Amino acid sequence: MTRNTLDPFDGLGPLADLVQALKRLPGVGPKSAQRLAFHLLQHDRQAATDLGQALLTAVRDVQHCARCNSFSHTALCPICSDTRRNASVLCVVETPADLAAIEATHTYQGYYYVLMGRASPLDGVRPESLDWPKLATRLDDGEVREVILATNFTNEGEATAVFLTDRIRKQGVKVSRLARGVPIGGELEYTDPTTVARALLDRRPLGADPE
Amino acid sequence: MTRNTLDPFDGLGPLADLVQALKRLPGVGPKSAQRLAFHLLQHDRQAATDLGQALLTAVRDVQHCARCNSFSHTALCPICSDTRRNASVLCVVETPADLAAIEATHTYQGYYYVLMGRASPLDGVRPESLDWPKLATRLDDGEVREVILATNFTNEGEATAVFLTDRIRKQGVKVSRLARGVPIGGELEYTDPTTVARALLDRRPLGADPE
Repeated sequence: MTRNTLDPFDGLGPLADLVQALKRLPGVGPKSAQRLAFHLLQHDRQAATDLGQALLTAVRDVQHCARCNSFSHTALCPICSDTRRNASVLCVVETPADLAAIEATHTYQGYYYVLMGRASPLDGVRPESLDWPKLATRLDDGEVREVILATNFTNEGEATAVFLTDRIRKQGVKVSRLARGVPIGGELEYTDPTTVARALLDRRPLGADPE
Repeated sequence: MTRNTLDPFDGLGPLADLVQALKRLPGVGPKSAQRLAFHLLQHDRQAATDLGQALLTAVRDVQHCARCNSFSHTALCPICSDTRRNASVLCVVETPADLAAIEATHTYQGYYYVLMGRASPLDGVRPESLDWPKLATRLDDGEVREVILATNFTNEGEATAVFLTDRIRKQGVKVSRLARGVPIGGELEYTDPTTVARALLDRRPLGADPE
């Protein structure tokens, strides 16, 4: 037994390249990459072609919106192009997915700023490395009166909010944060104690308080 | 509230197309597709470009080996091109990944035939729809003396083996099946009863049996 371990795709150039490229997707290991490649080539070459073209087109055409920093294939994204929105409120989110979550509420009429990330000191992402200067410039024009920080309520999102609060206040703009509390439909018994504690602290008066 | 639910990628043509294309990968749902698209466009455009090109190249160049039916970008795959192998044994496997598993043992010197699937009546895949005629033609040349059925020991793999056994025997070729039993390093306590039962039935004599 002097042979080395065989690469199963030895000599299979384009297939080996495809498996390698699939492995670079987050969450896809060697086995899944292999299974995906086999599936596409054996059962769904049309999907493989469509995905290949979609990737190349997106890489070529998708850039960032000049105003809100979200993904866009036009200079201004559809939301920033909509002049009927309320320019005095700016909601700061981490990702385009968070923007979509706020839009899905149908209750927010202002504009957005997408950080395209979060401060994450443990991963070496310092708050200063966020797309923060672009946001500062945006606030300088004086149109925005209030910034709603809608970063996630994770350690990273909170650190990002703390960092931004200081800087935005220095620019003389009001800063608010999404309310924390028990989710709609939530039961106290199954809500984590930190959330219940926060809901107690942030309790809201009902009706007129007695003097 | 008369507005319809917004598509978060409304008006984001190439990004929406990319998310749609990623959703067609097996095991990738809408949320993962979105996360993959964001990750690639925000953090790894090179990986996106490489994957796009690898997909298009593989779809264009990867076909099936004329002899063993495995994936190959040349008319004959490297294994079938290797004339030093033993042409009297043919190992039948379900997929190229199974072929790789057998090659990794470094103990098999014959050739392969890859079914590129398995009979799966529950999924509507009848045994007759496998690439079986190509295998039959291969056996007709009289060179192969023994076919080793190495389909998986799943219901589908077993059904496939049963189907093939009948047909291969009719062609006058000897058929064998991989041994079933307790895996190397396996403990009886943690081995499923069916496997232990099979290992009992297929027990092997040690040394010379007393007359």
